[in-house]
Amino acid sequence: MRTSQFPLHTLKESPADAEVVSHRYMLRAGLIRRLAAGIYTWLPLGLRVLRKVEQIVREEMDRIGGLEVLMPAVQPAELWQESGRWEQYGPELLRVRDRHQRDFCFGPTHEEVITDLVRREISSYRQLPLLYYQIQTKFRDEIRPRFGVMRAREFLMKDAYSFHLDQASLEETYARMHEAYSAVFRRCGLEFRAVRADSGAIGGAVSHEFMVLADSGEDAIAFSDESDYAANVELAEALPPEGARPAPAQAMERVATPGAHTIEAVSTFLGVEPARCLKTLLVAGAEGGLVALVVRGDHELNAVKAAKLPEVASPLRFATAEEIAAAVGCGPGSLGPVGLQMPVIVDHAAAHVADFVCGANEEGFHLRGVNWGRDLPEPRTADIRNVVEGDPSPDGRGRLRIRRGIEVGHIFQLGDKYSAAMGATVLDEAGRSVVLTMGCYGIGVSRVVAAAIEQNHDEHGIVWPEPIAPFRVAIAPIQYHRSAAVREAADALYARLCAAGVEVLLDDRDVRPGVMFADLDLIGIPHRVVVGERGLGRGVVEYKRRGEAEAEALPPQALLERLGVGAGG
Amino acid sequence: MRTSQFPLHTLKESPADAEVVSHRYMLRAGLIRRLAAGIYTWLPLGLRVLRKVEQIVREEMDRIGGLEVLMPAVQPAELWQESGRWEQYGPELLRVRDRHQRDFCFGPTHEEVITDLVRREISSYRQLPLLYYQIQTKFRDEIRPRFGVMRAREFLMKDAYSFHLDQASLEETYARMHEAYSAVFRRCGLEFRAVRADSGAIGGAVSHEFMVLADSGEDAIAFSDESDYAANVELAEALPPEGARPAPAQAMERVATPGAHTIEAVSTFLGVEPARCLKTLLVAGAEGGLVALVVRGDHELNAVKAAKLPEVASPLRFATAEEIAAAVGCGPGSLGPVGLQMPVIVDHAAAHVADFVCGANEEGFHLRGVNWGRDLPEPRTADIRNVVEGDPSPDGRGRLRIRRGIEVGHIFQLGDKYSAAMGATVLDEAGRSVVLTMGCYGIGVSRVVAAAIEQNHDEHGIVWPEPIAPFRVAIAPIQYHRSAAVREAADALYARLCAAGVEVLLDDRDVRPGVMFADLDLIGIPHRVVVGERGLGRGVVEYKRRGEAEAEALPPQALLERLGVGAGG
Repeated sequence: MRTSQFPLHTLKESPADAEVVSHRYMLRAGLIRRLAAGIYTWLPLGLRVLRKVEQIVREEMDRIGGLEVLMPAVQPAELWQESGRWEQYGPELLRVRDRHQRDFCFGPTHEEVITDLVRREISSYRQLPLLYYQIQTKFRDEIRPRFGVMRAREFLMKDAYSFHLDQASLEETYARMHEAYSAVFRRCGLEFRAVRADSGAIGGAVSHEFMVLADSGEDAIAFSDESDYAANVELAEALPPEGARPAPAQAMERVATPGAHTIEAVSTFLGVEPARCLKTLLVAGAEGGLVALVVRGDHELNAVKAAKLPEVASPLRFATAEEIAAAVGCGPGSLGPVGLQMPVIVDHAAAHVADFVCGANEEGFHLRGVNWGRDLPEPRTADIRNVVEGDPSPDGRGRLRIRRGIEVGHIFQLGDKYSAAMGATVLDEAGRSVVLTMGCYGIGVSRVVAAAIEQNHDEHGIVWPEPIAPFRVAIAPIQYHRSAAVREAADALYARLCAAGVEVLLDDRDVRPGVMFADLDLIGIPHRVVVGERGLGRGVVEYKRRGEAEAEALPPQALLERLGVGAGG
Repeated sequence: MRTSQFPLHTLKESPADAEVVSHRYMLRAGLIRRLAAGIYTWLPLGLRVLRKVEQIVREEMDRIGGLEVLMPAVQPAELWQESGRWEQYGPELLRVRDRHQRDFCFGPTHEEVITDLVRREISSYRQLPLLYYQIQTKFRDEIRPRFGVMRAREFLMKDAYSFHLDQASLEETYARMHEAYSAVFRRCGLEFRAVRADSGAIGGAVSHEFMVLADSGEDAIAFSDESDYAANVELAEALPPEGARPAPAQAMERVATPGAHTIEAVSTFLGVEPARCLKTLLVAGAEGGLVALVVRGDHELNAVKAAKLPEVASPLRFATAEEIAAAVGCGPGSLGPVGLQMPVIVDHAAAHVADFVCGANEEGFHLRGVNWGRDLPEPRTADIRNVVEGDPSPDGRGRLRIRRGIEVGHIFQLGDKYSAAMGATVLDEAGRSVVLTMGCYGIGVSRVVAAAIEQNHDEHGIVWPEPIAPFRVAIAPIQYHRSAAVREAADALYARLCAAGVEVLLDDRDVRPGVMFADLDLIGIPHRVVVGERGLGRGVVEYKRRGEAEAEALPPQALLERLGVGAGG
């Protein structure tokens, strides 16, 4: 393509309302344009990227035997009433009434439609398992759409649904889908992790989220540097420290800590590192009263884990200052486990510290040199903290790293939630009617594009992973409209690359090189070739990989080899 | 693909509510399933066909420089209010209110959205002309959806929009689009005609409809057997007959024709062919009173043409029996032009008949041997009839044929209807603001699939044109699960064809050959190969082209050649 036939729609200024980098760059690079809140048009440059992601998804779904269908966007209310979601879904479901006053919705997902199809078409266990998928436009009426296509109302999704006679068959397909999703994101050139997740509102038991790693991600995830273990930080298990607790070396003493009510203040005041200052937090007990939770000063209490303790009220509720004063007689910044008249539950890591510092349960005082089993009883221990970078991986392989992630895919073992509600059954080998077991699997195709940018960009613009770049190579000729030599060389290179099947964009606009380079950096084409008279005089063109600082002078043949284009052709 | 991995969903019975053959076969062959009135799911087999049509359309749009975009399905009411269509469009526009009580619609077309995009993005004549297209799901809330995907509410459409500085540029793009549409339907393997049409509600001047020829078509079209002239029968011009009118040979006489009030009855009674019996029809005049219109007995009055006559009231209104009795004194079956006291307008062909029969304006009597210029004045003539098969083509090349057609594409020269209403302007070379000139162009992608079936089927099922068949070759092995020789031979042939890139369906179901053959005929795969023990014993397989009666015994190598698969591989 030439920019004369494939116009760029780049913007110099960052749009005011774009909060995240992918949104800014998608607007600035001319990939999308906003039509209404959370509703975008894909311009030709953006659509090329979207289609590449779509095609990778399609190929991987086909590879594992997925059958592509196309279900309608507009779905009758009756099916949603059968599943119970017409009431449950809330205002995110865009409801619409047709000219005959019948209720429909613009489908945000297709469990009901596919279950209805399958209950009509499939009658025997012999037809199972089945895996249907589609790549289709969905609508969710988000209350606050934002971040461009990252959290849009109308979006392109790959959704898949599998049907099984039993759980074992579901698990088999689920494992293949896990593989297929990994292949999709790997082929897109993205760094990602598959994270075991709570399945949330859709229901069912086991589920995994596929997260593209990016600083701007909404979720913190912990993953092993040696295995494929990954989990949301909130759900990652913190293993008890190995080995025995060090022996006590200090005597317990009560020290005045005037005005020091935080770990940081106490640590500084006493010259003791935060890891040896224990933090005591009081929460509501399961059967009334209060319960003390103790973690290391450098750790954070994990509310999800704590709320699962039998002693603790769920959901977790922290004691108020008044409750603390009434129960202990001091402020929250002076609490400690010694002599506390309530259940005390101590995080494994905190229970492993010797000679620790903690509050004295007396305003303005702390204890130092405290030891479990000597100055207070050996504690009841539990995993009640968030994991931190460097923790051992719960699977016993490697250490944990923590990065933020953007959810781009989600796979669920749904069980019989929809098939039972909607009466989707088959006859098994013995002729008995069996409710189908289901899985469902989604990839936010348009979201993948945004996530790829969040992960791959610099201050100049997008740095596309090669497999999803809108073009692989950009040719930037200097004075294309004034130099016959440049025009000839650029055209010849363009023709050569096109003939070799390389997707190439020749920028034949009559603009200054600075403008051209800025645009090409912004739209993020992986390989840039500058053709100019000076270089041609020396028999070279200038090659630069997007994201690298230095350009290289290369003779045309070496350039072609660099781009993987063989001889001949 | 094997049917074990790619299940067929064929039905033996014809669904009761399917009125047309394409609807019946699309359901029976398992291409689609109904979700709600006018809303269908595309099953895997149908989607393969849909995607092929889509891909052909995409390639032809790209070839003429179309830029693919993807606009949202959900469109804000504001844009439709700007164009005036929020009020005009009526109940076919599916209106919806989001959670914030803002008005939107599910787009039935995208003139407003693309015009909004262009007015924001394009500012100079240098950026023109531009041609955007998309292949996208639309919704029209038809009052009576029917015929399956032929007149569905939700459907897949290719819509394209072009923007120009002036009419000349529009006409250039329009001509290229005309070519591209022809290429699309030709590549789909369809017999079609491009018909000059009234542009209807969308507005604008010149437009053409692309009609796939099929007996079940809603429109009758006339086209030349020698040129590419084609027009709706209602719009096709009937040329005046060539040469001079024959000289009178009979004397005029009044004959009793008791009870004969139709052309057929009079013709039979008098033994005069209908072409020489003139039919006189009275209609309301433009300025009150009545006007007589005269056509040959074997011709039909064309109401559209007649209503355009200055003497005639528009829209056309036929005189009632009472008006006729009051004005002439006889019934409508006894009218004739002789002595009639009102304007008489005679079709060119009727004016060319000598010695004709007509009503005597007296109940129970006709005149025979009547001649223009002798028994009554030379008439005022005009083209007021429908063309008939065998008429000369209005472009002077060949004769007209008449067939029915299904509209699958429509191209419009829109002019400035939307660009003026929405203020879409650019600066011209002189720096003046100019309202853009637009064209719009649609192909009903899902409708093409149905139209292809209407044109290509027999009593056994669909007979796909090869370019859009879901699979090119079907392998039907006899006793696949019981004969090792058959299984080996079928698997080997399957592998060989797959390796050569042929789309092949191996039917490995354990069903009787009759069931298999019926299903393969129904789904319409162009080439069928039966592999059975008897044939293998003689070193042959049985080859049959879908739609042909006879099968042929072919050695495997000859079969491959027949299928265009070369040696080696």
